[in-house]
Amino acid sequence: MQNKTVPEQPKQPEKEKMTIVVFSGEMDKAIAAFILATTGASMGMDVSMFFTFWGLNILKNNEGPAGGKGLMGKLLNIMNRGGSKRLKLSHFHMLGMGTAMMKKFMKDNKLPSVDEFIQMAKDMGVKMIPCSTSCGIMGLQEGAFRDEVGSLAGAAYFLNEARQSKVTLFI
Amino acid sequence: MQNKTVPEQPKQPEKEKMTIVVFSGEMDKAIAAFILATTGASMGMDVSMFFTFWGLNILKNNEGPAGGKGLMGKLLNIMNRGGSKRLKLSHFHMLGMGTAMMKKFMKDNKLPSVDEFIQMAKDMGVKMIPCSTSCGIMGLQEGAFRDEVGSLAGAAYFLNEARQSKVTLFI
Amino acid sequence: MQNKTVPEQPKQPEKEKMTIVVFSGEMDKAIAAFILATTGASMGMDVSMFFTFWGLNILKNNEGPAGGKGLMGKLLNIMNRGGSKRLKLSHFHMLGMGTAMMKKFMKDNKLPSVDEFIQMAKDMGVKMIPCSTSCGIMGLQEGAFRDEVGSLAGAAYFLNEARQSKVTLFI
Repeated sequence: MQNKTVPEQPKQPEKEKMTIVVFSGEMDKAIAAFILATTGASMGMDVSMFFTFWGLNILKNNEGPAGGKGLMGKLLNIMNRGGSKRLKLSHFHMLGMGTAMMKKFMKDNKLPSVDEFIQMAKDMGVKMIPCSTSCGIMGLQEGAFRDEVGSLAGAAYFLNEARQSKVTLFI
Repeated sequence: MQNKTVPEQPKQPEKEKMTIVVFSGEMDKAIAAFILATTGASMGMDVSMFFTFWGLNILKNNEGPAGGKGLMGKLLNIMNRGGSKRLKLSHFHMLGMGTAMMKKFMKDNKLPSVDEFIQMAKDMGVKMIPCSTSCGIMGLQEGAFRDEVGSLAGAAYFLNEARQSKVTLFI
Repeated sequence: MQNKTVPEQPKQPEKEKMTIVVFSGEMDKAIAAFILATTGASMGMDVSMFFTFWGLNILKNNEGPAGGKGLMGKLLNIMNRGGSKRLKLSHFHMLGMGTAMMKKFMKDNKLPSVDEFIQMAKDMGVKMIPCSTSCGIMGLQEGAFRDEVGSLAGAAYFLNEARQSKVTLFI
């Protein structure tokens, strides 16, 4: 019920939400996820990206030690180094030739690199959230990620976002 | 407001929408996508399939040159030839033996081939839309696709469909 | 309108639905699917998991014959044996070393195994439904699956659940 003595505040319309689970750590899937996330943000949507399992590789620091907790964690993260500049194509990697060709094509088409996409997403207000459970499984600590990345959160947090979202994708 | 002198037109109820991103170009994922798309259409849904990255291979012409713009584009599309009849399984391709076995199983179970599914989807009004950004990255032009395929469209078009959809999948 | 002579039944609010298509049969994707399914159930959601293609492997009996109808079906299911204890990682399987390392990490982090997840999901009321069409393609009969698994159902059943769901994922 409206209180007549207090002037009514113009109510801000709720933004439509979009939530993307990024499970895969390949360059092509990362690009697809960021194209959708930044397009959604440019359309005025409130976008959350939730990075799990191999998707965590996309957000790892490009420089510095590989991270990882304990001997096994260190070992796993040396093998599975990650970082936006080390991602490979899911097909036609061909010892790096296919991946390099795709990078050239993206540049020729004026498409940002994964690195630039992360910065752009951050600037557009896209939330990039590492899954806390996956970090446990992968032996990863919060310091392993780049500065653009938000706090860790679990599956319940993701599902609560997803159930309010107009669009939810698992990539 | 209703005009009383003109008989009211019975308003067509809006069809429920379904939107599928087809990112993968493997035979098994293509079949899953088309089973869902044609089932949705048969249930009265308005179905759009949005083909990106490797998924574009499904819609490429089976005959004629491989397509591709410029030397690099031509090269990429010769290696990554595509066409509904050249798709492979994501597992157990086994130099073609596994893929051939799956094709035989599908025939025995009276399931359409990918080629027949594309025709069936078209006949049922399913929209098959190649992603314009992916076409740029892959060096592909509109002529590379079969006749059943609609005009190219970008990520904003897809997201606008998806936000109105009851079901949205990324395959 | 309320009938005043009959005491009003407290109406059970409809539970929000979540539907997951499990297409992939890899250990990491299975774990992701079950983390989301059991988290959803613990949040009070009504969760259905719909297993298709390689995802059927997750639900196959760990013991006994491989199953499969006819000579070809038997052969296919011997090669593609499945069972929750035989699943491999999608990356870094490394002749079993990577998969074993991940299993150790999960145990160290007190995360259930896929086998335990299936039991837990069942106890929490998560429906686990094999796709009847996929069973046909894979030459599989109902007896090939473990006891926790529900009856087979087709794509129309899935889509009807999905269109009523707040969250739908294809994994």
